[in-house]
This record gives sequence, structure tokens and C-alpha cells, in this order.
Amino acid sequence: MLVEGSDINITNKFIQQTEKDFLYHFGLDKQSDEFDKTFKDVKIICTGGCYKRIENYAIMFAKEVGLPTPKNLCKSYRYVLYKTGPVLWISHGIGSASLSIMLIETIKLLYHAKATNVSYIRIGTSGGVGVDGGTVVISSGSINGELKQEHIQYVLGKKVTHPATLDKQLQSELMETAKKLKIPYDTGLTLCADDFYEGQGRLDGAFCNYTEEDKFNFLNKIYKIGVRNFEMESTCFASLLNRANIKAAIICVALLNRLNGDQIDLDNNTYHEFEMRPYKIVSQYLKNKFIF
Amino acid sequence: MLVEGSDINITNKFIQQTEKDFLYHFGLDKQSDEFDKTFKDVKIICTGGCYKRIENYAIMFAKEVGLPTPKNLCKSYRYVLYKTGPVLWISHGIGSASLSIMLIETIKLLYHAKATNVSYIRIGTSGGVGVDGGTVVISSGSINGELKQEHIQYVLGKKVTHPATLDKQLQSELMETAKKLKIPYDTGLTLCADDFYEGQGRLDGAFCNYTEEDKFNFLNKIYKIGVRNFEMESTCFASLLNRANIKAAIICVALLNRLNGDQIDLDNNTYHEFEMRPYKIVSQYLKNKFIF
Repeated sequence: MLVEGSDINITNKFIQQTEKDFLYHFGLDKQSDEFDKTFKDVKIICTGGCYKRIENYAIMFAKEVGLPTPKNLCKSYRYVLYKTGPVLWISHGIGSASLSIMLIETIKLLYHAKATNVSYIRIGTSGGVGVDGGTVVISSGSINGELKQEHIQYVLGKKVTHPATLDKQLQSELMETAKKLKIPYDTGLTLCADDFYEGQGRLDGAFCNYTEEDKFNFLNKIYKIGVRNFEMESTCFASLLNRANIKAAIICVALLNRLNGDQIDLDNNTYHEFEMRPYKIVSQYLKNKFIF
Repeated sequence: MLVEGSDINITNKFIQQTEKDFLYHFGLDKQSDEFDKTFKDVKIICTGGCYKRIENYAIMFAKEVGLPTPKNLCKSYRYVLYKTGPVLWISHGIGSASLSIMLIETIKLLYHAKATNVSYIRIGTSGGVGVDGGTVVISSGSINGELKQEHIQYVLGKKVTHPATLDKQLQSELMETAKKLKIPYDTGLTLCADDFYEGQGRLDGAFCNYTEEDKFNFLNKIYKIGVRNFEMESTCFASLLNRANIKAAIICVALLNRLNGDQIDLDNNTYHEFEMRPYKIVSQYLKNKFIF
């Protein structure tokens, strides 16, 4: 019997009542892995695509706040999962499908662990739209390929949509932190594409059934409605967390300004410096918020 | 000037004419990485989701055919890429978005390398529909969440679809090999879902706005139209390769029969034995086809 519960909104009655739950892609088992003990105190999850980047961030953060070097708690090769105090660091792979599995298993994990008042921050790279390379875009909302603020799913053969809503307060706290650190940032809508090449109007994919003019007309059109960057996970991220009653924010550095070109052509040092900017903002935010 | 070209169908004029092409997610560069020298002889690519599984398959295959242990040629942490004679082994991550990036960069890589007569086989795990756990499903075609044999993309704000067609001859050659090896197999349509939980009608996700009856009605409906398994990449895989003039086949083991349950609950030995079945068929097929 649960005396104290989680405030995470699981709408699945089967899971509410279940004794057994094996989180297949994490390789973690409700019955044998003592979710309460390890995850009850989680308050913030930071996620990003590449497992190596998340591993680096987690280890770096532990060092900065004086915690022991964390170990990967994920028991599969699908994702990585590190814990530093009340902060989890989990990779999500590329695209909404990969992210959705990780999110559903995290939501169930935290629900079983009876965690409360959880926030989720996606830290990533993106293509800027009308912002210079190196600018950190803190998303105000996310639109899909149909240019609607919704995440599209197909459930039992039918199209279903849910609003892709981000948390305003978390957004403004991250903006304030960026400002104090003097890291260049902007805010605006993020376009969530299902692919990197045609889905983002690039001219450097294998296929291209549109002209350079079509591309720029599209980029200018989305700039005018407030889009400031492209990535590949945001509508899914916003909508699933919104449904779960978890606050969500997205902070991605623009690697290039798509109004100037398509190919990402940065030297290693510049790439690394850009890649670190969202982390610097988030790690400062975490240090302001929690005592380690 | 190209005297001898590739028969891979790149419809993008910008890439046909380009001197520079950096395959960002592979970290490979057309100008410095000598694509011709390394990849011109490629005839078959084997791909699968988990990088560790692909690494294992590639190393195992090299051993079986007496080739030196291959090294990972991918220069990023996004994917892995191994070469054993004319066979490439590349991971694709989870879902169509992750797969699409890998495919577009492989197609460009092989085009620049002037490879010809290339086939592509996806080796994976899946949820069976009306087939027992352990059955290898060799796909006859793939349908999307709308139950159509098409891959959906959003390009410059518009919905675009392409047929998700697989190669009949490759399919029947793999079926023949399975038969000779006495590995249980079946053939039928594969349903390509965008997510693992709601998208496949599971009752064990965080959200579930349908009943058990709704679920079984759906599973029985798709069984009747010929669906034998669920996975998360097939329409994208079939349609992009079809556009590129590369023959495509999909061979996935069913880890469970979804008509009996949702949770994957196999002991490690059974899981490993099931996971090896599609590899055994493909490796035998390769050994019949090529001299190593």
C-alpha cells in the first residue's frame, strides 16, 4: 500500500496497480532494483542525444560540486543514466521515437520511486534560424512539421495529437542564468523535424526535390512566425512531460545559422566551446537551486 | 570528372556537383577520408539498432570468415561502422529519425565511393503479432501508423509520402536460408510504429487511453491484414532505400507474441539465443554469396 505517492501523472491504470514492471530499454526492474532508495530524491533530469556527451556532463558536474564520480546505472546499451545528488543525467538518442521510449521509462521509474516536483531539461545542439552559430536558444514552445504546437502520435491506427507545452518559469530562470553568465542567448519557437536533411530543408542530403529559393522562402516564413532553431525531439519532449505533470525546458546551442548555409563546418575547439554553453548555463542553474 | 559512377540514385543536384561533403553524424569527410579506397567494393550493408549488437555481429562475422578483427570507422559517438570485406555493419539507433540520418549519410558515402549493386539488410528485434517468441519475421512490406505502405515526411511544412517497398528476391533468398538452417521463420507485413508503448498498443506504458479490449481488437485487425510484427524503422528504411535504388530487406526476431502479453520477460540465455537467429541467417546468406 502506498502511503506517500508521487505527483507524476500516470494515466495508465495497469501501471498504477502493477507489482511487476520491467523497464526493458533501461534494463531496470521495479521488483529487484529498489527504485525508492535510489531515485526518490530526484528533482531534475538533464537529457541530451549523445550518450558520450551526457556521460561527460555528469562526470564534469560531479567534479564541480564535489560529489564522487557517478557510475552508469542503465543496464542496457540503449541509453546511459547517471545520478549526481537530486540530478539525473540520461541520454535520449536521436529523434522523437528514441526519446519517447526513454521518457516513458523515466516517468514510470520516478512514479514507482515516488519522486515529487520533478523538472526535465533537454540540453542539445540545433540549427539556428536567423541566429548566429554559438547562440543558445531557450525554447518558448515547439512546433511540428505541420507548423502546429502539437506532438503527433498514431495510436491503434488513429492520429492523436497533444499540445507541446513548455514551462514558462523554468524558461525564464534559464534565460536569467544565461544573462548573468554573459553567454549569448535568444528565445523563440523550436521546429521539431523528423529528419535532419529534407525535414529541415537542407540542400546537402541525398534527396532534394525543392530549389534553393523554396528553401529560403520556408526558412524566412518560419523565422517570421517566431522559429529560432531546428532540432528533432522537442514536440515529443514537451507533450509527454506535459501529460505527466513534469515541468519541461529545452536549451540548445545553434551550431550554425541556417540562413547562411547547411553544412556544419566548425573546427573542434569552436564546436566544443559551443557544445559547452548550454551545459554551463544549466550547471550554474543547478548550483543556484540545490545544495550539494 | 567521373569516368565510372555509382548506380545509387542521388536526386540532389547539389550533392552530384559537390567537391566538399562532410557526413556530420559519421564524422567522415569526402575530401580527406578517401571514400573510394575504403568503400568502393561494398555490396551489402547490415544494420541494427543497438551499437553494441552491431559491433558484436561484425567482430563475430570477421572471425567466422577468417578476416582480421575490424575497427570502428565512425568518427563520432552517434553510430558505429565496421567493414568486413564487401560487408558494412552500421548501427542505426532507435526509430526512423535516427535511422534516416544514418541512411542518408550511408547513401552519400557509397555514392561518393562509386559503389554499385548494393543491398541493405536491417537485422533487429520486434514484437510478434500472432507468431511465437523466437520466430524470425522476414518482412514482405511495411505499413505506417495510418496502416498504409508509405513513409510519411514533412518537407518545407508539407506532408510528403513515399512507398515503403522491399526487395522480393532478397526476401525469398533470406527465407530459403532460414529454411535450410531450420530456424523458425514467418513472413508478412511489419507495422512501423513511432513509439514503443502507445504506438504499439501496449498496456504497460505511462499513458493508456484505451482498454484491453481496444488493444486486442486492434491487434486482431492488423493480424487479419497480414501484419506479423511491430518495430520502429521499417517504412523509413524501405522508402529511402527504394528512392536510392538500393535493394532492401528486413529480418527481425519476435521477442514475444503480443497477443499473449506486453512485457518482454525472457531470461538472458533465451534472449541471446533469439537475438542471434536473424544474424545466423544473414551470416549464412553472406557466406553463400561472397568469397571471403
